[in-house]
Order: sequence, then structure tokens, then C-alpha cells
Amino acid sequence: MIKMGVIGYGYWGPNIVRNFGETPNARVVVCCDRDPKRLEAVKSKHPSIATTDDFEKVIKDPGVDALSIVTPVATHYKFARKALEAGKHVLVEKPLAASVAEAESLVNIAGKCGLTLMVNHTFIYTGAVRKMKEIMETGDIGDIYYFDSVRINLGLFQKDINVLWDLAPHDLSILGHLVKEQPTSVCAVGSCQFGNGVESVAYLTVYFNSGLIAHFHNNWLAPVKIRSVIVGGSKKMILYDDMQASEKIKVYDRGVEVNGQKSVHDTLVSYRMGDMWAPKLDTTEALRGVAAEFVDCVQTGRKPLTDGISGLNVVKILEASEMSIKHRGREVKL
Amino acid sequence: MIKMGVIGYGYWGPNIVRNFGETPNARVVVCCDRDPKRLEAVKSKHPSIATTDDFEKVIKDPGVDALSIVTPVATHYKFARKALEAGKHVLVEKPLAASVAEAESLVNIAGKCGLTLMVNHTFIYTGAVRKMKEIMETGDIGDIYYFDSVRINLGLFQKDINVLWDLAPHDLSILGHLVKEQPTSVCAVGSCQFGNGVESVAYLTVYFNSGLIAHFHNNWLAPVKIRSVIVGGSKKMILYDDMQASEKIKVYDRGVEVNGQKSVHDTLVSYRMGDMWAPKLDTTEALRGVAAEFVDCVQTGRKPLTDGISGLNVVKILEASEMSIKHRGREVKL
Amino acid sequence: MIKMGVIGYGYWGPNIVRNFGETPNARVVVCCDRDPKRLEAVKSKHPSIATTDDFEKVIKDPGVDALSIVTPVATHYKFARKALEAGKHVLVEKPLAASVAEAESLVNIAGKCGLTLMVNHTFIYTGAVRKMKEIMETGDIGDIYYFDSVRINLGLFQKDINVLWDLAPHDLSILGHLVKEQPTSVCAVGSCQFGNGVESVAYLTVYFNSGLIAHFHNNWLAPVKIRSVIVGGSKKMILYDDMQASEKIKVYDRGVEVNGQKSVHDTLVSYRMGDMWAPKLDTTEALRGVAAEFVDCVQTGRKPLTDGISGLNVVKILEASEMSIKHRGREVKL
Amino acid sequence: MIKMGVIGYGYWGPNIVRNFGETPNARVVVCCDRDPKRLEAVKSKHPSIATTDDFEKVIKDPGVDALSIVTPVATHYKFARKALEAGKHVLVEKPLAASVAEAESLVNIAGKCGLTLMVNHTFIYTGAVRKMKEIMETGDIGDIYYFDSVRINLGLFQKDINVLWDLAPHDLSILGHLVKEQPTSVCAVGSCQFGNGVESVAYLTVYFNSGLIAHFHNNWLAPVKIRSVIVGGSKKMILYDDMQASEKIKVYDRGVEVNGQKSVHDTLVSYRMGDMWAPKLDTTEALRGVAAEFVDCVQTGRKPLTDGISGLNVVKILEASEMSIKHRGREVKL
Repeated sequence: MIKMGVIGYGYWGPNIVRNFGETPNARVVVCCDRDPKRLEAVKSKHPSIATTDDFEKVIKDPGVDALSIVTPVATHYKFARKALEAGKHVLVEKPLAASVAEAESLVNIAGKCGLTLMVNHTFIYTGAVRKMKEIMETGDIGDIYYFDSVRINLGLFQKDINVLWDLAPHDLSILGHLVKEQPTSVCAVGSCQFGNGVESVAYLTVYFNSGLIAHFHNNWLAPVKIRSVIVGGSKKMILYDDMQASEKIKVYDRGVEVNGQKSVHDTLVSYRMGDMWAPKLDTTEALRGVAAEFVDCVQTGRKPLTDGISGLNVVKILEASEMSIKHRGREVKL
Repeated sequence: MIKMGVIGYGYWGPNIVRNFGETPNARVVVCCDRDPKRLEAVKSKHPSIATTDDFEKVIKDPGVDALSIVTPVATHYKFARKALEAGKHVLVEKPLAASVAEAESLVNIAGKCGLTLMVNHTFIYTGAVRKMKEIMETGDIGDIYYFDSVRINLGLFQKDINVLWDLAPHDLSILGHLVKEQPTSVCAVGSCQFGNGVESVAYLTVYFNSGLIAHFHNNWLAPVKIRSVIVGGSKKMILYDDMQASEKIKVYDRGVEVNGQKSVHDTLVSYRMGDMWAPKLDTTEALRGVAAEFVDCVQTGRKPLTDGISGLNVVKILEASEMSIKHRGREVKL
Repeated sequence: MIKMGVIGYGYWGPNIVRNFGETPNARVVVCCDRDPKRLEAVKSKHPSIATTDDFEKVIKDPGVDALSIVTPVATHYKFARKALEAGKHVLVEKPLAASVAEAESLVNIAGKCGLTLMVNHTFIYTGAVRKMKEIMETGDIGDIYYFDSVRINLGLFQKDINVLWDLAPHDLSILGHLVKEQPTSVCAVGSCQFGNGVESVAYLTVYFNSGLIAHFHNNWLAPVKIRSVIVGGSKKMILYDDMQASEKIKVYDRGVEVNGQKSVHDTLVSYRMGDMWAPKLDTTEALRGVAAEFVDCVQTGRKPLTDGISGLNVVKILEASEMSIKHRGREVKL
Repeated sequence: MIKMGVIGYGYWGPNIVRNFGETPNARVVVCCDRDPKRLEAVKSKHPSIATTDDFEKVIKDPGVDALSIVTPVATHYKFARKALEAGKHVLVEKPLAASVAEAESLVNIAGKCGLTLMVNHTFIYTGAVRKMKEIMETGDIGDIYYFDSVRINLGLFQKDINVLWDLAPHDLSILGHLVKEQPTSVCAVGSCQFGNGVESVAYLTVYFNSGLIAHFHNNWLAPVKIRSVIVGGSKKMILYDDMQASEKIKVYDRGVEVNGQKSVHDTLVSYRMGDMWAPKLDTTEALRGVAAEFVDCVQTGRKPLTDGISGLNVVKILEASEMSIKHRGREVKL
């Protein structure tokens, strides 16, 4: 039985508490928040869970095996580092940390201490992304030409992080999960609308040596909610439309054929249209899978699917994108 | 009565011939194409229209008042220049020319000769774009924060021009029509899949001094057909979805409110959700409007809505985008 | 403070408990179910709520003011009657009862005792239906020509009631709420697939003297989930698509114009296409409104929006539809 | 080479002329219409086709092998009968005739004279319906439980026929093509809005002995255009949505399983959700297939896919539906 402490009981914390509460071999024993009202909320809904506003007390508690850090990004590093140093396994919300230096530090500490460090890249545990992974591993898609993601809506504005730090981790983690090749550089552009230096609209390109190009559109100012990913392969293409109630994944037997090449500048390309197939997806709540993965990794010592390295890889791209935006789209090496 | 010559009777030429044929005060008198089979097609469908494979003969013909150039981009300049020099008014398919130098030259020649030079930015004449223009001119949208365009499908690959030169002129002309401010620079990224140096997937950003950012996603390798534009304003937002059979334009009474600013880094932003409204659109074929506009401008001497300058503006962005792609996203001034 | 007893804690009971728990002036004091496991579920989630398997005890309890009956349809009458006779106000799930005789009896008893009898026609309390009502009361829709409802999906098969008794009460209650005229007769057809005499697919027509026709398609065997209502008026038309995440209500400025009548058999009819408008809807959970309405009616003595009579009207149509199905579509007077 | 005469050059005639014009082994030699303006339209578009307003002349012309009757329903019989009696093969627009008596008469005459009588049930020749037929013939769908069709829009009102006679032939012909079993009776309801005795909204149910039920909703007063058919089978289900630009046919691996039967009234039914599959469809214009089928049948003497009998079967249902509507839904035997 893994005894969990949950740090932060704001917007997202209740989902963490509920899911660990329903996971075999896990139990939430304590919740920590600075806001007494939030602790009241815990007590009223979960009378059996202890509450405290003292983080230090939690990490010193020998009855706590592991922590789930559900606080603003800027504080991830502080809490996670202290927890690891106190010998606790740690699950951190995305993005793993506010800088590459912080993320690397967490990875190193966890490695040295032999503790589980996992980042909550929730989407990796959805039925949709698991199915995409399964399909792509068969090779049916062929070479991957591009990965195009759009995640936009009229959003909850963040004051401390821009729209890429807020929304792109979801799709960057999906990219990192589906594509084994490491990206080499990024370009990003964005715009601030409210004089506060925080971009509300941004576009990010990630380059790979193979020619694969990944692109991300994130926007807090969109009138409609779009959450889609297209994976364009040489043999087949996948459309992942997360706004669909069913048929979130569509596999198109469509592709391109190079029919000959008269010269460098005269390649004959034609395209092929075939059937579309929408596989049935597992609809288990993704966060349930996150909790199960974390508990299992703590118990067995194996690496989580979304380990510290995958969290670090996302932060590397985010940090580089911020520099690229400042230089108005200049390529920044990773 | 304006007597028209149509140069080029390939994929698009028949639409031009049909629409000028149905426009008051215009008549197509001659069609010119190098391919005898295409001229046969003209004869069989339009017995009253003369045919020739000799362009020089057409421009020397005093019975021809104006030409419609419906040939590959690379030849626009050659044919349009000669036509203008021969004293003929000219309507050129988009993009106006294959380079800024060529486009400027055409604008200059037309200006000197006092002839009508019009570019066929067809979308400007659709009911949808005309309605957007009408709405935006009332000021109801507020400040324009961004213009986001996606025009993708499994496409007709071009050998001589990349996907931006092929598809972006549509949306760049819409941008130029709706937004009076001139753009200052561009960033673009793209990828070639077939070793021929021609990008099939590309993303283009256009910067403005006001902070407005415009972005274009063009793709010949997409499994689904998307043609959408979002105009994000401070008061309202417009979604133009050209794939909808009806309700192509949706105006969302949604926006953002700055509720105070404690400090530079602490702006309080909230958003507002209201009704959506889909105005009825005129469904007249856009090309009919193009033909009518051209004929009227030739007759009255006034500037066309889509004059040489608007064609030149689009080519400026395309040329800059090509350079930016080569430098992997570097900003290129306009 | 109204002290509530909840009878039945199966699939739907938890929603009732949660919503009364969050309603001002109400408190759930006891839950009753025959299944000890369900009572355990109550205790674990709501330690402050008493539990019992003895309905008689609940209705004798002077500390209970009102009951919410959340049991199978066949038992509604039994529980509701006893509760009313014991002087308790009653909220019953839809449909109000299993027969017209039962429903009339409940209405009569509640009337005599001066108690609140309310039926949980939840949809009446949704933002969508409230907006439809608001729009229709302005007269903007004109005369109502037809009401067409489709509520189909691959469904939870009921053993004791057919698909109309299961699904049609939702749309019949909407019809009754929006249209003041009383229906006069019904026709219904249906088919049983599993040899058990329970229709899984059924179509119901409701006639009105004015010429208005209402039609309902209910289906447990559909591959896709559709929940839509069209209200066709002489001036405007409303489409209520409950499967849309936003824009559930669309008002079309479309209608028909009679332009003259040469003779009885030669009426000139043309149609008019105008704008579409999707009003912003209140997104408060409908069940919250149900709970608030019930509590307010108990406290003030006024008639609920969905009173016993509205529940009876729905049951009248259901009972008639069953007879019509048995006679393969024969008209049955109401 | 089959030499065709086309009788009627109104709204639909031009499509017939164009398609026969592009069909091998066929040539349109003459068009007949009472309206001189329509004959002018023929001349201007097809100078090689003779024109006349004298139907008798056409049927006496030995240079005409076959006629396509593209006139109002009320006149189908008159023209088709005379044509057959004059020894011409005949293609008639849907519905075949205005009554069962007329349709039977045409079938008999054609049979006696050994001439081809074909009805233009165009949808049978679409890629979508051909694919449905192909899938259903494999048996993959299992037993067919129901056939549900909705064909509604804000429509072109007819003065002489009601909405079922206008729109239902499309879906009735699809039903007849896909399902071999003969229907036994019908129920129909409808409503007239304009005091002219012509129903604008109607619902039709068709019964089969096997328990299969087919239902049709046709409506000229709908704010949106819907054209969908659902075929519900015991193993799989098909959704045919003709308003989709692509993926018109979706095959759902969804069905129902009877898991046991404790008693007549206690059948245990569960459902199964699997993948969805959207096969690629042939996108050839359906009317091209109609023309090719007719020409081939005339040349070879074989029965057309949509022969007189299939036209008669549709008319039988239409005539019965009219009687059922008059008796407010009473079952009418076929």
C-alpha cells in the first residue's frame, strides 16, 4: 500500500485525490494547501484524509511514501526537490519544472536516490493516444512526414506562464511518446495582447533531422475549442480529434506515391485515397492510468512511461521556444 | 461591350470563359492555348468563340479589348506585360507574378498606360468574405488580435511552386482585404518530402506593427480538407469555415476583458461568452463577381477591388516566405 | 430547511442526493434502499446521511418533510401514494407513474392533502429548453407547424418498459412545456427484436387540433447517439441539438410564405432563408434547478413548473401509444 | 449506338442530356418541350440536338430508339405508354407513375412489347448505395432490424404531389434495392400547412413479416438539410449520411447480444461496441451509371437494375401511404 501525500488542492488537486483514492494499493493519507478553505473542502469530502498547511511536516512524515505535486509550475522544483531529498517518490504535474536546469536537477536527484520521478503527462494514458502508439508501432503509417497539433479555446489566462507553457506540454508529450527521434531545434512566434509580456497566441515548430516537422498552435483567444492532432505518414495518416465524443481516432488509408523522378526538379507525385477506420478506444479515465502507473513504478522500481526524462524533454522545447519567440522566430538549437 | 481574349484553357480556363460569357457587357471572342486538344474543347462547347495557338495574334487583334491570363504562374509576367504593352486591359490569375520584381513591373506598366490591371483573388468576391468585410468595417470586432488560416487537403502537387505559392494567395488576399495595416515582416517554416526542393507542408507567420499576428498553415499532405480562417478581435471573433455547406461565417460575441492591472506582470484578464450569429450569405458564384468587377473597371477606369497593388502585396509576402523557409524561420522584413 | 428522504440509491439516486445536498434550504437526512451495498455507498460518501431499508420508517419519521422517489417506474405509484398519505411532499422521477389511473390518483391525493407533487422532467430545467421557451413566448416563431424529436443510441435496454416509456418522457415533457395546446390523439408503431414483447425501436405521432403534428423517434439499437428536436414555425425554426458541446440551440430565420392562392389546389408557397442565431445558454446543471424548484414549491405552496398534471399528461400519451402500437398504428384518442 | 429522345427540358432535363451525351453508344438526337424558351436553351448549349414541341413527332421518328421521360409525375404514364406503344424503349423519372394502375399498365405493355422499361431511381447508382449493397450481401450486417430514413430540408414545394411522393421514392428505392423481402403494409401520418391538401411534413412506416420495420421522415419545412439512412442489423449497423462530403458510409461494428432468456418477459440483452469503418466510395456521377445501365439494357435486352417492377413497388407504397394519411395512420395492406 503506497501512502500518498497530495500537495496543492486547487483546481486539479481533487481529481488527483479522487483517482488515487480509487487505485488499488494506494491511499491518500494527507493533503497540504496554504489556503484553509481548500483544506476545509478536503475535510468535508474526504473526512479520512489528514490536512495541513505545512509542507515540511508532510515530507518528514514517515507514514508518507510518495507525493503528488499539484501546485503552480513555478513551485514544482522547490517542492519536488525537497520531497526527493526527503526520500519520497514524486509525481509532478506538467510541465515538470519551470526551466531545463530545474528539470535536469530533479532527474539527477531522483536518479541518485533511486526514487521514482514521474511527470503527469496525462494524455499519454488516454485510450486515444495509446491506440495511436499501437498503430504507429506496427509501421502501418510509414515514414512520418509531419505532426500538426492545434489546441485552442477561449481559455483560462495564466499570469505567470504563456500559452505554450500552459497548453503545449500536452501535445509535446504526445509527440515525444509517438516519435522516437529526438528533435534538433525549434522556431516559435507569438503575440501578447495585454501588455504583460505573456503570449496568448503562439505557434511553435519543432525540427527533426529526418525531415519530420512538428507544429503546434496554442491559443487562449479562440472562439471555438479545437483539440486536434494530425500525423501525416507516407502510407497512412491519423487524425486525432479530441473534441469528438466518439471516433476520436481516425486512420486514413491515404498517402502519397512518388511515381518517378525525371530530374531533381521533376518528381512525379500522386496521391492515393482509401478507406477510413476509427478503432474502438478504451474509455477508462486517463488519470486512473496515471495513478496506477505511478503506484506500480514505486512498488517495482521500474521507470514510468512518463519519467523525468520525458518531462525534461518537454521543458527543453518550451525553454527554447521562449527564446525563439523573443527573437521573432529565430531557430534555436536544442 | 468588352471583348475578351482568354489565354490558357486548362483546368481553370473553362470557368473563366463561362463566367465572362454570362456577364453583361462582356463577350469572350477568342481563346488561346498551345494544346490543340484544348482548343477543340473550346470549339465543341463554345462554337462562337475563335481559337488560336498564337498569343501574338491575340494581342495585335484590335477586336480584343482585354485579356484574362489563365496560365501557369511562371508565365503570368510574360503574357501580362506583352498584353499591357499592346494596350490591352489584363486580368491575371493569382498569384499575380512569380516575383516581386515582375509584379512591380506589371503595376508600373499598367499605371503608365492607364490600363486596368486586376488580379483574380477570387475569394474577395465570395459572399463569405464580403460579409466579413462588412462586419469588420462596423468596428464590432474591436482590435484585431490575430488572423489564423488553415487551408489543407490531400492536394494536387505542383512541381514548380511550393504549397505556399499554391494555396496561401487565397488567404493572404483575404488578410490584405480585411486588414488595412501593412505587414512588416514574415517568418516561415516548411518541409519537403520528395527530394525535389518543393515544400508540401508549410507554416507562415506575418507580423504587423500593431501586434496583430497572422498565421497560415498550408499542406498538400493532409488526410482531411480544412479551409478555415479565424479572426480574433478584442470584442468579437469570426470563424469562417469554407467547408460548411451553410453557415460559413459565424460571429462569436466572445472576447477578453482586461479588468485591471496591478503591475506590468499582473494583468487581470477575464473572458466573456455571448451569443453566436451566422449571417445569411450571398451565394452568387464568386467568379461572376470577378468578371463583373473587371468589366466595370475597364469601362469606367476605376481601380479594381483586387488591383495590381493587392496582387503585388501578396507576392511580396510569398517571396519573403520563401527566403525565410530557406533560413529555417528567420524573420524577413517586407 | 426542507429535510429530504431519498427513496432508491441506484444509478440515478446519487445525482439526486448530490444536488439536494448543494441546494440552499434543503438537506438530505435519510436514504432508503433494499440493497445493503447501496446503503454502504451512501454511508461512505455521505457519512452524515442516515440509511435504512425500511420505507415505512421513513414516511413515519416526523423529521422528514419530503421524499424524492428514485425507483423503477413500476413502483412509483406505491411509494408516492404512501408518502403523500403520510403527509410528505413528493418528487417523482419520470415518468410519473406506470398508468394513467395511477398518475391521476397521485394528482388527486396531492390535491386533497395540499401537498407538493412534482415530477422530475429534468430537461425542462436545462438552459436549452428554458431558452427555447423564452424565444417561443415572444411569438417570434409564429405558428408552430411541427415538433420533431429524435432520441436514439445504442442503449441500456429495459426489461419492463419499452423504448417509448424509457426515452419519450424527456421529449414529451418538452413538448408539453413549449406548446400550450392539448394533444387530441396519437399513432405509434414499433418493433420488438428479442421476442420479449418490449419494443426497442418506436415512432410516435401526436396530433393536435390546430394541425400541429409532433413526432418522436426513440431507438435503443442505433449506432450513433442523436438527441435533437426541431420546432418548425411559420416565421422561424429552432433546432435543439443536445449532442453539441456548445450552440445547442440554433434559431433559423427561415420560413415559408404563402404568396397567393389561385384556388384550393393552387397555393403559391415560397420559402425565405435568413440568418441563424445561437443564443448563449445557462449551463447550470439542470438537476440543481429541479431541486431548487421542489424546495421552493414545498416552502411556498405554489405549483411546480413540472407538477403532477404535466406528469399525468406525459403518461396519457405513453399509455395511448402502447395501445396504438398493439393495433399497428391505429389512431388512439387521448 | 442508341439514339435518344429527351422529353422535357426543365430543371432536370439538362442533366439527362449531358449524361447521355457522355455515355458510350448513346447519342441524344432530339429534345422535346412545350416551352420555346427551353428549346432555345437546348439549341444554344447543344447545337447538334434537334428540338421540337411535338411529342407525337418524336415517337413516330424511326431515328429515335429510346426516350427519356423527364416531365411532371402526372404525365409520366401518358408519355411512357405512347412511347412504348410506338416501340420505343423508355426511361422514366421517379416515381414511375402517379398510381399503381398506371405503373402496372406500363410494366405490362413493356413486357408484351419486349421493350426496356427502366425507372430513374438514381440513388441506386451512387457509390454509397452500391457499397451498402455490397456490404449487406456478405451477410456481415446480420438480420436487419430496422431501416430509418430522414430526408428533410427547406424545400421546393410541389403543388400537385405531397412530400412523400416527392422525396420518399429515393429512400423507398434504396430500401427495395437493399432488402429482398417484400413489405406487407404501411402506416403514414402527415400534415398540411397551407390549406391546399398537400402534406409538407410526413412520416411513413413500412412493415415486413420478418419484423423488420422501415420508417421515412420527409419534410419540406426543415431549417436544415438532412439526408440520412440507418440500417440497423443484428451484427453491424450502417449509417449513410449523404450530406458528408466524404465518408458518406460508416459501418459500425456495434450490435446487440441476447445473453439468455429466463422467461418470455425476461430476456437479457447487452450491446457490443467495436470499430467503425468508412469504406472508400466510387465518386462517379450516379446519373452516368443510370445512362450506361439503360443503354446496355436496350442493347442486350436484359432487365435493368431499376426495372419497371422496382418502380411499381415504390408506387404501391406511395399510393398506400396516401390512403393511410387520409385515415390518420391506419394500417393499409399492400
